[in-house]
Amino acid sequence: MASSLFSRQLSLSLQKNLWLGTAGKSSSSNTGCRYVSKAAPKTQVEYDYDGPSMKTSVPGPRSKELTKQLGEIQNVAAVNFFCNYEESRGNYLVDVDGNRMLDIYSQISSIPIGYNHPALLKLMANPNNLSAFVNRPALGILPPENFPEKLTESLLSVAPSGMTRVQTMACGSCSNENAYKAMFIWYRNKERGHNTPSDEDLSSCMINKSPGCPDLSILSFMGGFHGRTIGALATTHSKAIHKLDVPSFDWPIAPFPRLQYPLEEFAKENAQEEARCLEEVEDLIIKWRQKGKPVAGIVIEPIQAEGGDNHATPNFFKSLCNIARKHGCAFHVDEVQTGGGSTGKFWAHEHWGMEDPADIVSFSKKLLTGGFYYKAELQAEKAYRIFNTWMGDPSKNLFLVEVLNVIRRERLLEEVTRSGKTLLNGLYELQTQYPGILSRARGQGTFCAIDVCDDETRDKILLKTRDKGVLLGGCGDRSIRFRPTLLFKEYHAHIFLNIFNDVLAQYK
Amino acid sequence: MASSLFSRQLSLSLQKNLWLGTAGKSSSSNTGCRYVSKAAPKTQVEYDYDGPSMKTSVPGPRSKELTKQLGEIQNVAAVNFFCNYEESRGNYLVDVDGNRMLDIYSQISSIPIGYNHPALLKLMANPNNLSAFVNRPALGILPPENFPEKLTESLLSVAPSGMTRVQTMACGSCSNENAYKAMFIWYRNKERGHNTPSDEDLSSCMINKSPGCPDLSILSFMGGFHGRTIGALATTHSKAIHKLDVPSFDWPIAPFPRLQYPLEEFAKENAQEEARCLEEVEDLIIKWRQKGKPVAGIVIEPIQAEGGDNHATPNFFKSLCNIARKHGCAFHVDEVQTGGGSTGKFWAHEHWGMEDPADIVSFSKKLLTGGFYYKAELQAEKAYRIFNTWMGDPSKNLFLVEVLNVIRRERLLEEVTRSGKTLLNGLYELQTQYPGILSRARGQGTFCAIDVCDDETRDKILLKTRDKGVLLGGCGDRSIRFRPTLLFKEYHAHIFLNIFNDVLAQYK
Repeated sequence: MASSLFSRQLSLSLQKNLWLGTAGKSSSSNTGCRYVSKAAPKTQVEYDYDGPSMKTSVPGPRSKELTKQLGEIQNVAAVNFFCNYEESRGNYLVDVDGNRMLDIYSQISSIPIGYNHPALLKLMANPNNLSAFVNRPALGILPPENFPEKLTESLLSVAPSGMTRVQTMACGSCSNENAYKAMFIWYRNKERGHNTPSDEDLSSCMINKSPGCPDLSILSFMGGFHGRTIGALATTHSKAIHKLDVPSFDWPIAPFPRLQYPLEEFAKENAQEEARCLEEVEDLIIKWRQKGKPVAGIVIEPIQAEGGDNHATPNFFKSLCNIARKHGCAFHVDEVQTGGGSTGKFWAHEHWGMEDPADIVSFSKKLLTGGFYYKAELQAEKAYRIFNTWMGDPSKNLFLVEVLNVIRRERLLEEVTRSGKTLLNGLYELQTQYPGILSRARGQGTFCAIDVCDDETRDKILLKTRDKGVLLGGCGDRSIRFRPTLLFKEYHAHIFLNIFNDVLAQYK
Repeated sequence: MASSLFSRQLSLSLQKNLWLGTAGKSSSSNTGCRYVSKAAPKTQVEYDYDGPSMKTSVPGPRSKELTKQLGEIQNVAAVNFFCNYEESRGNYLVDVDGNRMLDIYSQISSIPIGYNHPALLKLMANPNNLSAFVNRPALGILPPENFPEKLTESLLSVAPSGMTRVQTMACGSCSNENAYKAMFIWYRNKERGHNTPSDEDLSSCMINKSPGCPDLSILSFMGGFHGRTIGALATTHSKAIHKLDVPSFDWPIAPFPRLQYPLEEFAKENAQEEARCLEEVEDLIIKWRQKGKPVAGIVIEPIQAEGGDNHATPNFFKSLCNIARKHGCAFHVDEVQTGGGSTGKFWAHEHWGMEDPADIVSFSKKLLTGGFYYKAELQAEKAYRIFNTWMGDPSKNLFLVEVLNVIRRERLLEEVTRSGKTLLNGLYELQTQYPGILSRARGQGTFCAIDVCDDETRDKILLKTRDKGVLLGGCGDRSIRFRPTLLFKEYHAHIFLNIFNDVLAQYK
């Protein structure tokens, strides 16, 4: 039973373990420096485990057996291993072979406050909440009584600056698809000067033709990732395997700045690179307007995640937003991966310091539900334009209320800033120590990454680190991305850095 | 507490009420015939209410207040009223003003076994299931231990003929989008003669260009509905409001047969109409191949639902499937609305009597999770081609196992066939009685519809029927669609028919 996880018998013997450097049985070659915990007991995750514990290499025999079984049912080429979610807790993911790993990937960055958090289990034990799980409504037509209240307590309580309206959706791709639709509708109404379509609009759209289905476009960035459904995919340009063989649109694609890190040391070079990209953006907007495919909206991630953790400066985003406004394009900030606190602010775009940064902000993953915030002027007036059967899932809003309570109560954004610094400083040290292997350490909060010399070495390092009890993810061509939960503390960073150091030492 | 719903004190006093014709306080003008229940007690839904009970017109004051509140947060133009899901049970939806309505729309056809079904509440009470709710995994990379088992017990136990593989997704639109991607990938591999893309494929797809993003198409039908994300929307042609202002693809759109009902009385005329449409399909396939945009797949609903409940005969679908195979197109049957039992078979396409009817069958709604079954040859070989963060939600699979158990244990498909006959015969009688108002009654199982003389009258009848305690939905230009849960019995049909008769009598 999951609630047995929280027995006090299982509380931490953390500091002792750290000092002894026993991060799983595989940590044999203790070369290099040792990191020690400065974490005070108050910041410990009380129901967390005290460190990784590895029994087999990963995937172990049980995982392999289950992968074979699942392989009879669907494609399993991406399956890492099978998990025992009942036994997982906090920052630790337990697999079906009894291996316990420090999880710094957190289900592709989608677990906000760790596994089996007591606050979420408590919510499930409340009989008043049962109905939200067993009676999934068609939210757009028949919402439950507490829907406005729960939206207010959850999504609206963390609404980005300047935004009071939000629409939930089932997943990140759907969120972006519907955000694009909202921008197209808004743009066409601007062109018309009113909201009433012509008879020609109405008849031509039924057969996919202009002017009803207009030749409008969304400007996106090379390296960006905004989802895998066909509309979202037309703005995704991170990896060929996502896009290959799928028909797409002739929409403009701008270069994303390729900066040098640490950003502050290359301010001048980076400013030049950003200016070059901004100039290209403006050229593309003009070119596509001349082509008869005007840009209705610009979509961008505050940090390109899937595409390799590419950062840009607040100045770049401010200028980009100004360009969008100058040319009458909506400005859509995709916070599907960056949102929810892991950069040290709830929304990564808050780091830009703008009062009015975006027209649309989409989210999913750590928010537990997909959706998008939008300015009032981007709301389609009529019914059924932004619509589907479920339009989200109110049971996810219930969880989100609790997640946000935990984030506030435990000041997790401050913790993220603190542990993120420890993590990034550790990465800086390691890249100094292993200059032939590591480079370009970068990050905001715990949303960090580092490059490896080549993709083959990167992939090997990921597997070796996993076999020593730390689960990481790759991104871009040869980057490692760090995506822990918001419960990741300084001592978790130390556990990771010690193990990572051990792995890297084998390459020296 | 929801489980208090099942107290025996609340068991039916149904037959008495039916004989007295007391279907809510509004049923005053008892003109026309009275329908009486032939239902045996064994088929009663024990935790159901005994009939509608109306306290206000709908929406009532509390619903109006909440709609205003929600209107500050999002578009509420489609909101009917707010619901008290805790108090809803079986076939009855209770609103926030205490009105209790017989629900023959069931959240746009997405509630399989009624509100607060004891089997689903029991599942929630089992602590072994908690983890599936609080730890939503990234199913494509880190599935839970019981995932293959639960897929086998749920989706695979009702797999369409010839299919052993299934991929879950979050919603209906995503299911179709990913099914289209699977068909495009399959088609391009056929064209190549192998699975290895060229360097040109890989580089061109990154910038949305051919050959990497090829000019392939999906053939769809006028009146069809396959979702509202941009790719799915390119195959949706039911209502302009869904498509207006959204860029689309130049993909072929065939006419769907416009048949006369009852089908058996117009066999010859209908066969001619179907032959005309099939000829057009073949012409379009050839034309689009010549255009350089070959048809990779054909997508069709077994009954066009959103588009107005348009039926076609098994012979039409057989011939269509043959055309698809002749021209090397995949054949995708979209069962998002028709699937799950309401036609009297679990999949509507089972009525065609074909051994090998489809290459892809997509689903959502009553299946509680989106997804699609597919033939082995339509599985992309590599990882991350059909992929996203969540790829469904395993907690929905748990519910589906229970839903399927209830369907089997209570022989609900037989019940649907029985109550559907009662409903359709009642509609036939009413259209004879009100020939100026009603026409074209049609249906399979409880998946029924009837046309009203014009859209304005249709909309008024829907509202009047609702105020008398029966919730219905519209579809097409001027149809009423019936989409009850699978617990809808003959006596529920009688309750509806009596109320409907009262409403229609006002138009005489």
